[in-house]
Amino acid sequence: MSHPAPTPRTRIRRLHEKAAYDRAVIDAILDTMPVAHVGHIVDGSPVVTPTLQWRKGDRVYWHGSSASRMQKRAADEQVCLTVTLLDGMVLARSGFEHSVNYRSVMVFGTAEVVEGAAAKEAHLRAMMEQMFPDRWNALRPITPQELKATRILSLPLTEASAKLSTGHATETPGDSSWPVWAGVIPIHLAVGQPEPAPDLAPGLPVPGYASGYRIG
Amino acid sequence: MSHPAPTPRTRIRRLHEKAAYDRAVIDAILDTMPVAHVGHIVDGSPVVTPTLQWRKGDRVYWHGSSASRMQKRAADEQVCLTVTLLDGMVLARSGFEHSVNYRSVMVFGTAEVVEGAAAKEAHLRAMMEQMFPDRWNALRPITPQELKATRILSLPLTEASAKLSTGHATETPGDSSWPVWAGVIPIHLAVGQPEPAPDLAPGLPVPGYASGYRIG
Repeated sequence: MSHPAPTPRTRIRRLHEKAAYDRAVIDAILDTMPVAHVGHIVDGSPVVTPTLQWRKGDRVYWHGSSASRMQKRAADEQVCLTVTLLDGMVLARSGFEHSVNYRSVMVFGTAEVVEGAAAKEAHLRAMMEQMFPDRWNALRPITPQELKATRILSLPLTEASAKLSTGHATETPGDSSWPVWAGVIPIHLAVGQPEPAPDLAPGLPVPGYASGYRIG
Repeated sequence: MSHPAPTPRTRIRRLHEKAAYDRAVIDAILDTMPVAHVGHIVDGSPVVTPTLQWRKGDRVYWHGSSASRMQKRAADEQVCLTVTLLDGMVLARSGFEHSVNYRSVMVFGTAEVVEGAAAKEAHLRAMMEQMFPDRWNALRPITPQELKATRILSLPLTEASAKLSTGHATETPGDSSWPVWAGVIPIHLAVGQPEPAPDLAPGLPVPGYASGYRIG
Protein backbone atom coordinates (compact mmCIF):
# COMPACT_ATOMS: atom_id res chain seq x y z
CA MET A 1 0.00 0.00 0.00
CA SER A 2 1.21 3.48 -0.79
CA HIS A 3 1.44 6.11 1.93
CA PRO A 4 0.43 9.31 0.20
CA ALA A 5 1.32 12.62 1.78
CA PRO A 6 -1.73 14.57 3.03
CA THR A 7 -3.33 16.73 0.39
CA PRO A 8 -5.56 19.73 1.02
CA ARG A 9 -8.50 17.42 0.44
CA THR A 10 -7.42 14.85 2.99
CA ARG A 11 -6.57 17.57 5.46
CA ILE A 12 -10.11 18.90 5.17
CA ARG A 13 -11.53 15.43 5.50
CA ARG A 14 -9.64 14.89 8.72
CA LEU A 15 -11.64 17.77 10.17
CA HIS A 16 -14.93 16.07 9.43
CA GLU A 17 -15.94 15.79 13.08
CA LYS A 18 -16.09 18.92 15.15
CA ALA A 19 -17.63 20.42 18.22
CA ALA A 20 -19.45 23.75 18.16
CA TYR A 21 -20.52 26.05 20.92
CA ASP A 22 -22.01 28.58 18.57
CA ARG A 23 -25.65 29.27 19.41
CA ALA A 24 -26.54 29.56 15.73
CA VAL A 25 -25.37 25.98 15.17
CA ILE A 26 -27.05 24.71 18.34
CA ASP A 27 -30.32 26.50 17.58
CA ALA A 28 -30.43 25.22 14.01
CA ILE A 29 -30.19 21.60 15.17
CA LEU A 30 -32.78 22.03 17.92
CA ASP A 31 -35.14 23.78 15.50
CA THR A 32 -34.75 21.06 12.87
CA MET A 33 -35.29 17.96 14.98
CA PRO A 34 -38.11 17.93 17.55
CA VAL A 35 -37.29 14.49 18.97
CA ALA A 36 -35.03 14.62 22.03
CA HIS A 37 -33.76 12.01 24.47
CA VAL A 38 -33.86 13.28 28.03
CA GLY A 39 -31.73 11.62 30.69
CA HIS A 40 -32.82 11.68 34.33
CA ILE A 41 -31.60 9.83 37.38
CA VAL A 42 -34.29 7.66 38.96
CA ASP A 43 -33.39 5.81 42.15
CA GLY A 44 -29.73 6.11 41.32
CA SER A 45 -29.97 4.81 37.77
CA PRO A 46 -30.08 6.69 34.49
CA VAL A 47 -33.34 6.69 32.53
CA VAL A 48 -33.39 7.95 28.93
CA THR A 49 -36.81 8.93 27.61
CA PRO A 50 -37.69 10.07 24.09
CA THR A 51 -39.81 13.20 23.99
CA LEU A 52 -40.55 16.22 21.80
CA GLN A 53 -38.58 19.39 22.48
CA TRP A 54 -38.95 22.91 21.22
CA ARG A 55 -36.76 25.96 21.62
CA LYS A 56 -37.91 29.46 22.43
CA GLY A 57 -35.21 32.07 22.75
CA ASP A 58 -32.52 30.96 25.15
CA ARG A 59 -34.29 27.89 26.53
CA VAL A 60 -35.34 24.45 25.38
CA TYR A 61 -38.71 23.07 26.50
CA TRP A 62 -40.39 19.68 26.69
CA HIS A 63 -43.64 18.50 28.20
CA GLY A 64 -45.49 15.49 29.46
CA SER A 65 -48.10 14.36 31.91
CA SER A 66 -48.13 15.89 35.39
CA ALA A 67 -48.69 12.35 36.63
CA SER A 68 -45.56 11.02 34.93
CA ARG A 69 -42.86 9.83 37.27
CA MET A 70 -40.22 11.04 34.80
CA GLN A 71 -41.64 14.51 34.65
CA LYS A 72 -41.89 14.80 38.42
CA ARG A 73 -38.38 13.55 38.87
CA ALA A 74 -36.93 15.89 36.30
CA ALA A 75 -38.08 19.07 38.03
CA ASP A 76 -35.22 20.79 39.84
CA GLU A 77 -32.89 17.91 39.10
CA GLN A 78 -29.93 17.63 36.79
CA VAL A 79 -30.93 16.42 33.35
CA CYS A 80 -29.27 15.99 29.98
CA LEU A 81 -31.28 16.62 26.83
CA THR A 82 -29.75 15.26 23.63
CA VAL A 83 -31.00 15.78 20.07
CA THR A 84 -29.49 13.75 17.24
CA LEU A 85 -29.95 13.79 13.49
CA LEU A 86 -28.51 10.85 11.58
CA ASP A 87 -27.16 12.09 8.25
CA GLY A 88 -25.40 9.07 6.86
CA MET A 89 -23.28 5.96 7.17
CA VAL A 90 -19.60 6.48 6.44
CA LEU A 91 -17.85 3.46 4.95
CA ALA A 92 -14.06 3.47 5.18
CA ARG A 93 -11.44 1.02 3.95
CA SER A 94 -10.88 -0.17 7.52
CA GLY A 95 -13.51 -1.23 10.00
CA PHE A 96 -11.89 1.09 12.53
CA GLU A 97 -12.59 4.24 10.51
CA HIS A 98 -16.22 3.48 9.75
CA SER A 99 -18.44 6.09 11.34
CA VAL A 100 -21.67 7.99 10.94
CA ASN A 101 -22.43 11.51 9.83
CA TYR A 102 -24.65 13.30 12.29
CA ARG A 103 -25.61 16.54 13.95
CA SER A 104 -26.25 16.48 17.66
CA VAL A 105 -26.82 18.83 20.56
CA MET A 106 -26.42 18.15 24.26
CA VAL A 107 -27.92 20.48 26.86
CA PHE A 108 -27.07 20.05 30.54
CA GLY A 109 -28.70 21.78 33.46
CA THR A 110 -31.35 21.82 36.13
CA ALA A 111 -34.84 21.36 34.74
CA GLU A 112 -37.29 24.09 35.71
CA VAL A 113 -41.05 23.68 35.79
CA VAL A 114 -43.21 26.24 33.99
CA GLU A 115 -45.80 27.38 36.53
CA GLY A 116 -49.21 28.95 35.88
CA ALA A 117 -51.95 28.14 33.39
CA ALA A 118 -51.35 31.24 31.24
CA ALA A 119 -47.63 30.60 30.93
CA LYS A 120 -48.21 26.94 30.17
CA GLU A 121 -50.75 27.73 27.47
CA ALA A 122 -48.38 30.27 25.91
CA HIS A 123 -45.61 27.69 25.72
CA LEU A 124 -47.87 25.00 24.24
CA ARG A 125 -49.06 27.52 21.66
CA ALA A 126 -45.44 28.33 20.83
CA MET A 127 -44.65 24.64 20.40
CA MET A 128 -47.61 24.17 18.05
CA GLU A 129 -46.85 27.34 16.08
CA GLN A 130 -43.32 26.19 15.41
CA MET A 131 -44.44 22.85 14.05
CA PHE A 132 -47.79 23.79 12.49
CA PRO A 133 -48.21 27.54 12.02
CA ASP A 134 -51.74 28.91 12.62
CA ARG A 135 -53.05 25.56 13.86
CA TRP A 136 -53.40 26.43 17.55
CA ASN A 137 -56.21 28.95 17.00
CA ALA A 138 -58.17 26.45 14.91
CA LEU A 139 -58.10 23.73 17.58
CA ARG A 140 -60.71 22.96 20.19
CA PRO A 141 -59.48 25.31 22.95
CA ILE A 142 -57.41 23.79 25.70
CA THR A 143 -59.21 23.42 29.03
CA PRO A 144 -58.02 24.29 32.54
CA GLN A 145 -58.05 20.56 33.35
CA GLU A 146 -55.81 19.81 30.37
CA LEU A 147 -53.39 22.55 31.36
CA LYS A 148 -53.32 21.17 34.89
CA ALA A 149 -52.55 17.71 33.54
CA THR A 150 -49.64 19.03 31.46
CA ARG A 151 -46.23 19.63 32.95
CA ILE A 152 -43.76 21.72 30.98
CA LEU A 153 -40.07 21.62 31.80
CA SER A 154 -37.26 23.74 30.46
CA LEU A 155 -33.51 24.12 30.45
CA PRO A 156 -31.44 27.22 29.68
CA LEU A 157 -29.09 26.90 26.72
CA THR A 158 -26.18 28.16 28.80
CA GLU A 159 -24.56 24.72 29.04
CA ALA A 160 -25.11 23.42 25.52
CA SER A 161 -22.85 22.12 22.80
CA ALA A 162 -23.22 20.76 19.30
CA LYS A 163 -21.22 18.06 17.60
CA LEU A 164 -21.26 17.50 13.87
CA SER A 165 -19.70 14.97 11.58
CA THR A 166 -19.88 15.38 7.81
CA GLY A 167 -18.20 14.14 4.68
CA HIS A 168 -16.13 11.09 3.94
CA ALA A 169 -14.07 8.90 6.23
CA THR A 170 -10.74 9.88 7.65
CA GLU A 171 -8.72 6.95 6.37
CA THR A 172 -5.61 5.67 8.10
CA PRO A 173 -2.61 6.73 5.99
CA GLY A 174 -2.00 4.11 3.31
CA ASP A 175 -5.52 2.72 3.37
CA SER A 176 -6.99 4.74 0.51
CA SER A 177 -5.71 2.35 -2.12
CA TRP A 178 -7.22 -0.73 -0.45
CA PRO A 179 -9.50 -2.33 -3.07
CA VAL A 180 -12.86 -1.96 -1.33
CA TRP A 181 -15.67 0.47 -2.01
CA ALA A 182 -15.70 3.47 0.32
CA GLY A 183 -18.11 6.34 0.56
CA VAL A 184 -21.12 7.78 2.30
CA ILE A 185 -24.67 6.44 2.34
CA PRO A 186 -26.81 9.53 2.97
CA ILE A 187 -29.76 9.22 5.36
CA HIS A 188 -32.49 11.73 6.07
CA LEU A 189 -35.94 11.95 7.60
CA ALA A 190 -38.64 11.89 4.93
CA VAL A 191 -42.24 12.98 5.24
CA GLY A 192 -45.07 11.06 3.60
CA GLN A 193 -48.48 12.17 2.40
CA PRO A 194 -50.71 13.26 5.30
CA GLU A 195 -53.37 10.65 6.13
CA PRO A 196 -56.69 12.20 7.18
CA ALA A 197 -58.37 10.79 10.30
CA PRO A 198 -60.99 8.21 9.28
CA ASP A 199 -63.76 10.25 10.90
CA LEU A 200 -62.71 13.57 9.41
CA ALA A 201 -65.67 15.70 8.34
CA PRO A 202 -65.95 16.18 4.57
CA GLY A 203 -64.70 19.48 3.19
CA LEU A 204 -61.66 19.86 5.44
CA PRO A 205 -58.68 20.00 3.09
CA VAL A 206 -55.14 19.07 4.14
CA PRO A 207 -53.62 22.28 5.52
CA GLY A 208 -50.42 23.63 4.01
CA TYR A 209 -48.53 23.05 7.25
CA ALA A 210 -49.37 19.35 6.96
CA SER A 211 -48.79 18.84 3.22
CA GLY A 212 -45.63 20.96 3.41
CA TYR A 213 -44.35 19.59 6.71
CA ARG A 214 -40.59 19.09 6.81
CA ILE A 215 -38.37 17.63 9.49
CA GLY A 216 -34.63 17.13 9.76
CA MET B 1 -70.70 18.76 19.63
CA SER B 2 -72.02 15.23 19.50
CA HIS B 3 -70.81 12.57 21.88
CA PRO B 4 -70.71 9.42 19.76
CA ALA B 5 -70.64 6.07 21.46
CA PRO B 6 -67.39 4.16 20.95
CA THR B 7 -67.30 2.10 17.79
CA PRO B 8 -64.99 -0.83 17.11
CA ARG B 9 -62.82 1.60 15.20
CA THR B 10 -62.56 4.12 17.99
CA ARG B 11 -61.95 1.36 20.51
CA ILE B 12 -59.00 0.19 18.45
CA ARG B 13 -57.72 3.71 18.12
CA ARG B 14 -57.80 4.20 21.87
CA LEU B 15 -55.30 1.37 22.12
CA HIS B 16 -52.87 3.15 19.85
CA GLU B 17 -50.16 3.39 22.49
CA LYS B 18 -48.98 0.24 24.12
CA ALA B 19 -46.09 -1.34 25.93
CA ALA B 20 -44.58 -4.64 24.87
CA TYR B 21 -42.23 -6.98 26.66
CA ASP B 22 -42.19 -9.49 23.82
CA ARG B 23 -38.64 -10.16 22.67
CA ALA B 24 -39.77 -10.38 19.04
CA VAL B 25 -41.04 -6.80 19.23
CA ILE B 26 -37.97 -5.57 21.10
CA ASP B 27 -35.56 -7.32 18.73
CA ALA B 28 -37.31 -5.99 15.64
CA ILE B 29 -36.90 -2.40 16.82
CA LEU B 30 -33.26 -2.86 17.84
CA ASP B 31 -32.48 -4.57 14.52
CA THR B 32 -34.17 -1.80 12.51
CA MET B 33 -32.59 1.28 14.09
CA PRO B 34 -28.87 1.27 14.84
CA VAL B 35 -28.83 4.68 16.54
CA ALA B 36 -29.19 4.49 20.32
CA HIS B 37 -29.01 7.05 23.10
CA VAL B 38 -27.10 5.71 26.08
CA GLY B 39 -27.55 7.32 29.50
CA HIS B 40 -24.73 7.21 32.03
CA ILE B 41 -24.19 9.00 35.30
CA VAL B 42 -21.05 11.14 35.32
CA ASP B 43 -20.17 12.95 38.54
CA GLY B 44 -23.75 12.62 39.72
CA SER B 45 -25.37 14.00 36.58
CA PRO B 46 -26.96 12.16 33.67
CA VAL B 47 -25.18 12.23 30.32
CA VAL B 48 -27.00 11.03 27.18
CA THR B 49 -24.75 10.09 24.27
CA PRO B 50 -25.82 9.01 20.78
CA THR B 51 -24.07 5.89 19.56
CA LEU B 52 -24.57 2.92 17.24
CA GLN B 53 -25.93 -0.26 18.79
CA TRP B 54 -26.26 -3.77 17.45
CA ARG B 55 -27.95 -6.83 18.88
CA LYS B 56 -26.57 -10.34 18.93
CA GLY B 57 -28.72 -12.97 20.56
CA ASP B 58 -29.78 -11.89 24.02
CA ARG B 59 -27.55 -8.85 24.34
CA VAL B 60 -27.24 -5.39 22.88
CA TYR B 61 -23.76 -4.02 22.13
CA TRP B 62 -22.19 -0.63 21.46
CA HIS B 63 -18.64 0.55 21.11
CA GLY B 64 -16.37 3.52 21.27
CA SER B 65 -12.87 4.62 22.05
CA SER B 66 -11.08 3.04 24.98
CA ALA B 67 -9.92 6.55 25.80
CA SER B 68 -13.46 7.91 25.98
CA ARG B 69 -14.59 9.07 29.40
CA MET B 70 -18.13 7.89 28.64
CA GLN B 71 -17.00 4.40 27.72
CA LYS B 72 -14.82 4.08 30.82
CA ARG B 73 -17.60 5.30 33.04
CA ALA B 74 -20.19 2.98 31.53
CA ALA B 75 -18.32 -0.21 32.39
CA ASP B 76 -19.85 -1.96 35.37
CA GLU B 77 -22.22 0.91 35.99
CA GLN B 78 -25.96 1.20 35.54
CA VAL B 79 -26.87 2.47 32.10
CA CYS B 80 -30.04 2.95 30.07
CA LEU B 81 -29.93 2.38 26.33
CA THR B 82 -32.88 3.79 24.40
CA VAL B 83 -33.65 3.35 20.70
CA THR B 84 -36.40 5.41 19.08
CA LEU B 85 -37.94 5.44 15.62
CA LEU B 86 -40.14 8.41 14.79
CA ASP B 87 -43.03 7.21 12.61
CA GLY B 88 -45.25 10.25 12.38
CA MET B 89 -46.88 13.35 13.78
CA VAL B 90 -50.41 12.80 15.06
CA LEU B 91 -52.66 15.82 14.73
CA ALA B 92 -55.80 15.79 16.88
CA ARG B 93 -58.68 18.25 17.23
CA SER B 94 -57.30 19.38 20.58
CA GLY B 95 -53.74 20.41 21.36
CA PHE B 96 -53.85 18.05 24.33
CA GLU B 97 -54.31 14.94 22.18
CA HIS B 98 -51.58 15.73 19.68
CA SER B 99 -48.88 13.11 19.84
CA VAL B 100 -46.32 11.23 17.80
CA ASN B 101 -46.26 7.73 16.42
CA TYR B 102 -43.10 5.93 17.35
CA ARG B 103 -41.43 2.66 18.21
CA SER B 104 -38.97 2.66 21.08
CA VAL B 105 -37.01 0.26 23.23
CA MET B 106 -35.42 0.89 26.61
CA VAL B 107 -32.82 -1.49 28.02
CA PHE B 108 -31.65 -1.12 31.61
CA GLY B 109 -28.75 -2.89 33.26
CA THR B 110 -25.11 -2.97 34.17
CA ALA B 111 -22.82 -2.47 31.21
CA GLU B 112 -20.24 -5.19 30.74
CA VAL B 113 -16.97 -4.77 28.86
CA VAL B 114 -16.06 -7.29 26.18
CA GLU B 115 -12.53 -8.47 27.00
CA GLY B 116 -9.98 -10.02 24.67
CA ALA B 117 -8.90 -9.18 21.12
CA ALA B 118 -10.54 -12.23 19.53
CA ALA B 119 -13.91 -11.58 21.20
CA LYS B 120 -13.76 -7.90 20.31
CA GLU B 121 -12.97 -8.66 16.68
CA ALA B 122 -15.82 -11.19 16.52
CA HIS B 123 -18.28 -8.58 17.82
CA LEU B 124 -17.08 -5.88 15.43
CA ARG B 125 -17.41 -8.35 12.58
CA ALA B 126 -20.95 -9.16 13.69
CA MET B 127 -21.83 -5.46 13.79
CA MET B 128 -20.50 -4.95 10.27
CA GLU B 129 -22.17 -8.10 8.94
CA GLN B 130 -25.55 -6.93 10.21
CA MET B 131 -25.27 -3.58 8.49
CA PHE B 132 -23.21 -4.48 5.42
CA PRO B 133 -23.10 -8.23 4.74
CA ASP B 134 -19.79 -9.57 3.41
CA ARG B 135 -18.02 -6.26 3.87
CA TRP B 136 -15.80 -7.20 6.82
CA ASN B 137 -13.71 -9.69 4.86
CA ALA B 138 -13.10 -7.15 2.11
CA LEU B 139 -11.76 -4.47 4.47
CA ARG B 140 -8.18 -3.73 5.36
CA PRO B 141 -7.82 -6.14 8.33
CA ILE B 142 -8.16 -4.67 11.78
CA THR B 143 -4.90 -4.35 13.71
CA PRO B 144 -4.12 -5.28 17.32
CA GLN B 145 -3.64 -1.57 18.05
CA GLU B 146 -7.10 -0.77 16.67
CA LEU B 147 -8.67 -3.54 18.72
CA LYS B 148 -6.91 -2.21 21.81
CA ALA B 149 -8.24 1.27 21.10
CA THR B 150 -11.81 -0.02 20.79
CA ARG B 151 -13.96 -0.66 23.82
CA ILE B 152 -17.11 -2.71 23.37
CA LEU B 153 -19.86 -2.65 25.97
CA SER B 154 -22.98 -4.75 26.24
CA LEU B 155 -26.20 -5.15 28.17
CA PRO B 156 -28.37 -8.24 28.51
CA LEU B 157 -31.91 -7.88 27.19
CA THR B 158 -33.34 -9.19 30.45
CA GLU B 159 -34.58 -5.78 31.54
CA ALA B 160 -35.91 -4.42 28.27
CA SER B 161 -39.25 -3.08 27.13
CA ALA B 162 -40.75 -1.66 23.97
CA LYS B 163 -43.32 1.07 23.60
CA LEU B 164 -45.20 1.67 20.37
CA SER B 165 -47.71 4.23 19.27
CA THR B 166 -49.49 3.87 15.94
CA GLY B 167 -52.56 5.15 14.14
CA HIS B 168 -54.68 8.20 14.62
CA ALA B 169 -55.25 10.35 17.68
CA THR B 170 -57.37 9.33 20.60
CA GLU B 171 -59.77 12.26 20.60
CA THR B 172 -61.51 13.49 23.71
CA PRO B 173 -65.18 12.45 23.45
CA GLY B 174 -67.09 15.09 21.50
CA ASP B 175 -64.04 16.50 19.75
CA SER B 176 -64.25 14.54 16.51
CA SER B 177 -66.70 16.96 14.94
CA TRP B 178 -64.54 20.01 15.66
CA PRO B 179 -63.92 21.67 12.26
CA VAL B 180 -60.18 21.32 12.01
CA TRP B 181 -58.11 18.91 9.94
CA ALA B 182 -56.90 15.87 11.87
CA GLY B 183 -54.73 13.01 10.79
CA VAL B 184 -51.26 11.58 10.70
CA ILE B 185 -48.19 12.94 8.93
CA PRO B 186 -46.02 9.84 8.29
CA ILE B 187 -42.27 10.14 8.84
CA HIS B 188 -39.57 7.64 8.00
CA LEU B 189 -35.84 7.41 7.53
CA ALA B 190 -34.90 7.53 3.86
CA VAL B 191 -31.65 6.44 2.25
CA GLY B 192 -30.09 8.39 -0.59
CA GLN B 193 -27.77 7.31 -3.39
CA PRO B 194 -24.37 6.18 -2.09
CA GLU B 195 -21.65 8.78 -2.70
CA PRO B 196 -18.27 7.23 -3.53
CA ALA B 197 -15.22 8.59 -1.72
CA PRO B 198 -13.47 11.19 -3.90
CA ASP B 199 -10.28 9.14 -3.96
CA LEU B 200 -11.99 5.82 -4.77
CA ALA B 201 -10.01 3.73 -7.22
CA PRO B 202 -11.70 3.30 -10.62
CA GLY B 203 -13.50 0.04 -11.20
CA LEU B 204 -14.96 -0.40 -7.72
CA PRO B 205 -18.74 -0.50 -8.20
CA VAL B 206 -21.21 0.41 -5.46
CA PRO B 207 -21.82 -2.84 -3.54
CA GLY B 208 -25.35 -4.16 -3.20
CA TYR B 209 -25.29 -3.66 0.57
CA ALA B 210 -24.72 0.06 -0.06
CA SER B 211 -27.10 0.62 -2.97
CA GLY B 212 -29.73 -1.51 -1.20
CA TYR B 213 -29.12 -0.19 2.32
CA ARG B 214 -32.29 0.30 4.36
CA ILE B 215 -32.82 1.73 7.82
CA GLY B 216 -35.89 2.20 9.97
